[in-house]
Amino acid sequence: MGYGGRVARTALTPRTAAAALDAADPLAGFRDRFALGDEGRIYVDGNSLGPLAHDARAALAARIDEWRDRLVTGWNDWVEAPAAVGDRLAGAALGAAPGQVIVSDSTTVNLYKLAGGALDARPGAVVADASDFPTDRYVLQGLAQRAGRELRMLETDPIAGPQPADVEAACAGGAALVVLSAVNYRSGAFARMAEITAAGHEAGALVLWDLCHAAGAVEVDLDAVGADLAVGCTYKYLNAGPGSPALLYVRSGLQRELRSPIWGWFSQEDQFAMGPSYRPVAGMGRFLAGTPPILALAAVDAGAAMLADAGLARVRAKAAALTSLAVDLHDERLAPLGFSLGTPREPERRGAHVSFRHPDAWRICRALIERADVIPDFRAPDSIRFGLAPLYTRHVDVWDAIDRLAGIVDSGEHAAMDDAPRRVT
Amino acid sequence: MGYGGRVARTALTPRTAAAALDAADPLAGFRDRFALGDEGRIYVDGNSLGPLAHDARAALAARIDEWRDRLVTGWNDWVEAPAAVGDRLAGAALGAAPGQVIVSDSTTVNLYKLAGGALDARPGAVVADASDFPTDRYVLQGLAQRAGRELRMLETDPIAGPQPADVEAACAGGAALVVLSAVNYRSGAFARMAEITAAGHEAGALVLWDLCHAAGAVEVDLDAVGADLAVGCTYKYLNAGPGSPALLYVRSGLQRELRSPIWGWFSQEDQFAMGPSYRPVAGMGRFLAGTPPILALAAVDAGAAMLADAGLARVRAKAAALTSLAVDLHDERLAPLGFSLGTPREPERRGAHVSFRHPDAWRICRALIERADVIPDFRAPDSIRFGLAPLYTRHVDVWDAIDRLAGIVDSGEHAAMDDAPRRVT
Repeated sequence: MGYGGRVARTALTPRTAAAALDAADPLAGFRDRFALGDEGRIYVDGNSLGPLAHDARAALAARIDEWRDRLVTGWNDWVEAPAAVGDRLAGAALGAAPGQVIVSDSTTVNLYKLAGGALDARPGAVVADASDFPTDRYVLQGLAQRAGRELRMLETDPIAGPQPADVEAACAGGAALVVLSAVNYRSGAFARMAEITAAGHEAGALVLWDLCHAAGAVEVDLDAVGADLAVGCTYKYLNAGPGSPALLYVRSGLQRELRSPIWGWFSQEDQFAMGPSYRPVAGMGRFLAGTPPILALAAVDAGAAMLADAGLARVRAKAAALTSLAVDLHDERLAPLGFSLGTPREPERRGAHVSFRHPDAWRICRALIERADVIPDFRAPDSIRFGLAPLYTRHVDVWDAIDRLAGIVDSGEHAAMDDAPRRVT
Repeated sequence: MGYGGRVARTALTPRTAAAALDAADPLAGFRDRFALGDEGRIYVDGNSLGPLAHDARAALAARIDEWRDRLVTGWNDWVEAPAAVGDRLAGAALGAAPGQVIVSDSTTVNLYKLAGGALDARPGAVVADASDFPTDRYVLQGLAQRAGRELRMLETDPIAGPQPADVEAACAGGAALVVLSAVNYRSGAFARMAEITAAGHEAGALVLWDLCHAAGAVEVDLDAVGADLAVGCTYKYLNAGPGSPALLYVRSGLQRELRSPIWGWFSQEDQFAMGPSYRPVAGMGRFLAGTPPILALAAVDAGAAMLADAGLARVRAKAAALTSLAVDLHDERLAPLGFSLGTPREPERRGAHVSFRHPDAWRICRALIERADVIPDFRAPDSIRFGLAPLYTRHVDVWDAIDRLAGIVDSGEHAAMDDAPRRVT
């Protein structure tokens, strides 16, 4: 390859090419709807925590005013919020007809509710993937142990993503439940949802998709792929704020059969009659538990509305363009510096983030944040993730961030960083 | 008694007596710290949803700014928020030393986590009370059914509250867990926490207190009474907003022995190592589950801080004074109109709300809201609750609210109201 320190400054893909893509970007105007602050900073961690949008701030302020003005009488409307926000999100990002999505609780709790319900409804093993986000396997380890079920872990290559044949093999002899991520949290690989769902169904399993890195980043199409269940967070591409409530999807035909293991008053039929015995309401309400987070739901609603404005097809197209640019620049600028690409090369098999692998990834990541004002995140053992959220990331941001990354490594600045990963990012 | 329509207008306790109590109230200044709006409205439902405080609004705005400015790097501090807010709340309202309280999830989910953990740790039955809030019994019905445990329901007289002897009898033959409310949601009865906890311990049971109507209303003293576990909400007397996250207490000596049935990544040892197998962290962190609600926690913190400013002893004294005034006025103004008191008469056995019972309670409640601008709430079958939150309720508010209530019933205005209870309040 023969790149030297100076050569890394002259990319084969010039910055003007990135700027030209921005000039033609139909979503370019959406960037102004975010409070991104300092223009010098490049934020490429929207796949971990999306930034504040002006609409989210306004929606939160309006909801706080509603609390002030309506006090407890606000509940006459707020009781509908988990389902109303869920329906909006379903239409904007999930390819799901109304009445199948609610928003409340965390992804972890929602996964517990749905996977727990699925194990009550179906016999057999649980199939999951060791390369998926840890909270999923922890939840499933606990549920499987309690229910005396085998937990079969795929050892998927994160870049290739889970394969229908592997799911089929893991389900051999029958399975109760398959839990997989639609987009891998490290690699960004976008799973073949339809084929994998079909493979799970073939074995009699319910198929649950974790949409954390997919919702708002790819065209998920839950109804079309025949998904049974899904969970996912709203603080990434929905930009609803740190710890915002999570989504939960149950296919309409399955709602009557499943119930949550957490029997709470918000899932009770005729809730305010406060009857003596638990009886879950028909429909999605049965997957609620306690009092839903009304303030936070306002920001989720704002995030879903903004995504609906942008249009998921345009979002998806831009995600492909941004990540393709990142892959090209990786090959041109980073590979010569010892990086390898931790992300699929086919745009249609990627979400909206890319992963660059390097043996010194932690220190490089620290230096990038502290010395170059680029904010990505690190995932052990060796990945730097760049989340390229289509609503506010420009092509020149991708170019500049990778330019700064190459500069850090090229100059060896990262060598001076503390190498003990004790921080969140 | 011989009260007629006109006589009800001349109370034995005059409004000036209430005004004199306000003039001497050391907490009087706290009212200005709330955004109570329309001076004509009297809000006596703070035991369901506390009003917006200026500090809560400011804390939420500051946290939103922090999200905007720090983005994902904010998590380096936010990860501590559930414990930090918990410690503040523990000191301000719960009589608990640091390291025993966290705030996250809903009361329902927290009860599920702790009661589920308790059933894994102890053999035997579950004892609860049919007069307590429904979500508690629903959660326990689900857990008991799954674990094959007997659920023994006390049928406590709500006004008398649960008695140590009844708990002892219900625990006969051994019990795993006793779950009771410190303050009854309908009657406001304040349980004899120390004696009941001792009775439960005598039988080998863990004792879990639901503090929803107690936190910020009475001196709870969890450590002193020897409580094992507690849960409770923060949207009542902590004024943290609709659906704000709930508290969870585990006695320090018990933390190592118990684990949550929900195995989530926020309870994992060395969380960001994202190791393959679940291993709960030592300490309270093991009772977290998914990503905590960072924005909402700011309002809980503000509520706990305001309570700390006020001082729980003064709050408690004012609660006793306000509810005593309400009881006196009930006897003078409401009893002659067919009401009966649904609340203990001894101030030390009450929380901060009172309950007036009347066969036509629903319609009276509607008329009071729609015609008299007094906002209480209704609890089936026949109770109108007046929450008299000490931080912002004046003695004249109690006087005026009961005056308007008497006026409604005296004039028969409520008879025209719709009698179908379809609303939250």
